[in-house]
Amino acid sequence: MIGAAAPPDLADDDVVVIAHKAISKAEGRTVRLSEVAPGEHARALAAEHGKDPRHVEVVLRESAELVRAERGVLVCRTHHGLVCANAGVDASNAAAADELVLLPLDPDRSARELRERIAAVRGVRPGVLVTDTFGRAWRLGQTDVAIGAAGFVALDDWRGRQDAQEREMRATVIAVADAVAGAADLARSKDSGEPAVRVSGLGHYVTEEDGPGAAVLRRPLDEDLFR
Amino acid sequence: MIGAAAPPDLADDDVVVIAHKAISKAEGRTVRLSEVAPGEHARALAAEHGKDPRHVEVVLRESAELVRAERGVLVCRTHHGLVCANAGVDASNAAAADELVLLPLDPDRSARELRERIAAVRGVRPGVLVTDTFGRAWRLGQTDVAIGAAGFVALDDWRGRQDAQEREMRATVIAVADAVAGAADLARSKDSGEPAVRVSGLGHYVTEEDGPGAAVLRRPLDEDLFR
Repeated sequence: MIGAAAPPDLADDDVVVIAHKAISKAEGRTVRLSEVAPGEHARALAAEHGKDPRHVEVVLRESAELVRAERGVLVCRTHHGLVCANAGVDASNAAAADELVLLPLDPDRSARELRERIAAVRGVRPGVLVTDTFGRAWRLGQTDVAIGAAGFVALDDWRGRQDAQEREMRATVIAVADAVAGAADLARSKDSGEPAVRVSGLGHYVTEEDGPGAAVLRRPLDEDLFR
Repeated sequence: MIGAAAPPDLADDDVVVIAHKAISKAEGRTVRLSEVAPGEHARALAAEHGKDPRHVEVVLRESAELVRAERGVLVCRTHHGLVCANAGVDASNAAAADELVLLPLDPDRSARELRERIAAVRGVRPGVLVTDTFGRAWRLGQTDVAIGAAGFVALDDWRGRQDAQEREMRATVIAVADAVAGAADLARSKDSGEPAVRVSGLGHYVTEEDGPGAAVLRRPLDEDLFR
């Protein structure tokens, strides 16, 4: 559907940015609240934080680690290694009233598969980003970030290159895929029901190979200063 | 200079996004390393983390709180309430070899003043964002964020509005100014020496009044789960 709906001039150097919810639904990554039996931990957390114990149960199943549980907020490390509220489990824009949408099992694989399908349908292979909306530790509001990628350079490493004064830049690694995810979100509204955005002008970040995906954006556990 | 250099069709519904360094330099927010006498704390931290004690001294002066000091990384809360590496003190793209560039004292005021000057020079009052490049607690790479704003809705609050399935969105507050800051950074390169980017198509976020600025993006201290 994304391939068919894309603009007629969709090109190899475009980027297709898609909200993960559309992919999660297509992949069957949804859960009915009515089919969830909450365990003891979920019931205790739900009581403490004023949440639905069945929702909390699903959040815990999707989590490798509960990083913080304070003031109604559950910050989780998912099995993929993503740190976000509620392990990415979300009810908004679900198809049914008691449905929860989970993150794709492997968002980089999802991105690769979508890229492959677009190529089959359209004969072009744009870069693909799969996004979710994340909060931030010290800033209010959320921004979209890339949780999956195919054929796109997610991190642009400037270390060792020089600034405008020919001084070596020691720490500059730009999270390009996250910037694109945030930019794409500006082009649609949360109630539009439109999951995908075409971004042009960034062909220098699009690669023939699918590459390592958005996994490179996850900070390794042993570099985490905020567990 | 920004006003004079802007495209001829600069309009009221544009956004001018400017890297804080250009503003910090114009405001005299720079320090010469040779003029800094490091104190005891700075010398100890510098020795432990392999840094220049004079640089660390400046970082400490710019910090209200040292949030983490581990593995060569100093995560600081600045006097403004921004949490970032090295309190935003940076040597790259400085004018001289021993010069450090600090954050503006009041980036929202800087944005308002720039907006006023652009209006005086050009007769239009676009929104203005002042940006810096921040790392993230759990993600690799950096993205630009808005540390100052004038005439721009930094946070778009969807709470209480409905999603595509007419379900109320309980937590959706989009950090629009940060998404725009990241998007603008995609339009230039770190070695171009070009500090400003014009962003069009977001006039619905530009306001006649200067408004509360980017201060609304800072998570209040009593909501910080990661001190």
